[in-house]
Amino acid sequence: MEIRVVENVLKLNDEVARQNREALGAAGVACINIIGSPGCGKTTLLEVTLGRLRDRLRIGVITGDIATTRDAERLAGYCEQVTQINTGGSCHLDANQVRQGMGNLSLEGLDLLVIENVGNLICPVGFDLGQGAKVGLFSVPEGDDKPAKHPRIVLEADLIVLTKTDLLPHVPFKRDAFERDLRAIRGDVELLELAALAGDGVDTWCEWVLGFVGRA
Amino acid sequence: MEIRVVENVLKLNDEVARQNREALGAAGVACINIIGSPGCGKTTLLEVTLGRLRDRLRIGVITGDIATTRDAERLAGYCEQVTQINTGGSCHLDANQVRQGMGNLSLEGLDLLVIENVGNLICPVGFDLGQGAKVGLFSVPEGDDKPAKHPRIVLEADLIVLTKTDLLPHVPFKRDAFERDLRAIRGDVELLELAALAGDGVDTWCEWVLGFVGRA
Repeated sequence: MEIRVVENVLKLNDEVARQNREALGAAGVACINIIGSPGCGKTTLLEVTLGRLRDRLRIGVITGDIATTRDAERLAGYCEQVTQINTGGSCHLDANQVRQGMGNLSLEGLDLLVIENVGNLICPVGFDLGQGAKVGLFSVPEGDDKPAKHPRIVLEADLIVLTKTDLLPHVPFKRDAFERDLRAIRGDVELLELAALAGDGVDTWCEWVLGFVGRA
Repeated sequence: MEIRVVENVLKLNDEVARQNREALGAAGVACINIIGSPGCGKTTLLEVTLGRLRDRLRIGVITGDIATTRDAERLAGYCEQVTQINTGGSCHLDANQVRQGMGNLSLEGLDLLVIENVGNLICPVGFDLGQGAKVGLFSVPEGDDKPAKHPRIVLEADLIVLTKTDLLPHVPFKRDAFERDLRAIRGDVELLELAALAGDGVDTWCEWVLGFVGRA
């Protein structure tokens, strides 16, 4: 019985995700779903991205958390269309919550919607939200073994970003081992590396975002 | 219907957790459940603890992950009784998996069982495993806003450990804000700070562990 309920929940989620995708497509809005551990640098990457691209793209953000509106407050300084979803204990965003979040935004005023998922490398991977691309973040201080331990995000992501590379001199992180594990899971996975605060690699990331919006 | 199924799952888990607690108590084994994000330093803290306390306590470990046996391999160098549970995609350990793990260990040869939960700051908090104490880890590079975003672990933990304090000079982390948020959630929460690799604070942590085992 438990399995049937879970299947039904996922089936309902997929149907709402399909409707979200349709609404975004009709409004000409590209959509990225960013997934990563607590503190891997999702909000900081978004701050930097919004700052760099605000003259080139109209970007809206839906940010998910269990509690607090802190991420939305941080991002409100960079962009007018930000909405926070508090999941009330749930470990991931679902398509219905994103639909509600989309209702708070003016889609016709956007080129790109970025969904910052709840900080969790596991549960968010399984829920389609209607995005055009999933971006998976691993941060250097988490350690080089994280792709091997969390293969599903590697299998499903359109792009993997290794963040906080400015901490490489200060932590035991074998870059070769990280990439070897990543490619063993999926040989053709696309990988970018950056340090959002120091600025390294941010240009390449912004080019990727602009390319994605151009193709969408 | 969904809610009833979830309630039944948790009720069954609590019953198995009760049995685990009874079996551990009968064998005179204290038990700690360590919970924290991917890469917050759970395994490293365990390596250091096993190294320091191996002449004073007989410690066994059950370590949970979605994939790989890497943590068990790392810990096997420090302790004879280690068993890895791969949850097969599930985002947390449950009491039944811990019961199976306990079946692989000789409880009569142990003073302390440490359960290293799956790397996840959310879902593991809700599942009683039969432990005597929950220890919640936050790491400095995750940022000072993590207690506010993850209040449930603060409310339920017997001890909060802030790890990787050696990275404080290299990341934007306001120690005061971290502690203020923590105490706003729960004024009497016990907090330790350490850098496992540098060795700072490890003595105090080991004293806490010895004290806990003495009281159990």
